[in-house]
Amino acid sequence: MRFGNGAFDGPYDFRSRMGEGKGTNPEELLGAAHAGCFSMALALQLTNAGITVKSIHTTPRAHFKERDGGWSIHRIDLDTEASISDMAAAAFEEHAQSPKRNCPISRALSGVDIHLRARLLYVSAS
Amino acid sequence: MRFGNGAFDGPYDFRSRMGEGKGTNPEELLGAAHAGCFSMALALQLTNAGITVKSIHTTPRAHFKERDGGWSIHRIDLDTEASISDMAAAAFEEHAQSPKRNCPISRALSGVDIHLRARLLYVSAS
Repeated sequence: MRFGNGAFDGPYDFRSRMGEGKGTNPEELLGAAHAGCFSMALALQLTNAGITVKSIHTTPRAHFKERDGGWSIHRIDLDTEASISDMAAAAFEEHAQSPKRNCPISRALSGVDIHLRARLLYVSAS
Repeated sequence: MRFGNGAFDGPYDFRSRMGEGKGTNPEELLGAAHAGCFSMALALQLTNAGITVKSIHTTPRAHFKERDGGWSIHRIDLDTEASISDMAAAAFEEHAQSPKRNCPISRALSGVDIHLRARLLYVSAS
């Protein structure tokens, strides 16, 4: 497995998919794609609303299960934490809904249930 | 961007998404996930049919476009090449159809048009 102009060049195997072995696997790569895409879309959405974002960190969890005679990724959980000065948690959670539904990877994954947990880490204004 | 128990730890940015800059991006990660998933499913399908596979190599191309008021991945092309002894090209192409439709990443990507080019590289039986 190789991509990113050589940025990644490493093992990729079935064992890592089933919870054993080293290296990456399709579910992990999909989760990484989704978390990165969501984070970029959320940063853009907040910036366009005039909000200064200090950091956004999103952790994905892809659920991989045998169902209907085949293995499926039926659900992805995104757990996002943002550091933003002087913002209400409810307003932040509302801003996070649009990228959850509309970021390019979310749009492509129309066969997957997407769950979001959005948390605001308060930082003092300076 | 970090995953694979530290197997990948590198830059991830918006510039690489728009054709500039270094590092990876969501489309590339999604393509890598899809190509790897398809290759594993095709290998399994051929092995289950008693066919010995020497190698499978799949290159993805994700099409990223602005459409319906947002950026979408509307199409992914998978270009797969397999080295297999003594197999007819038509039989190989037929075997490749099921993983194209049913590998876990293809099933998740129900919002994406998936195109497949399957080529058999003949190897002499030894």
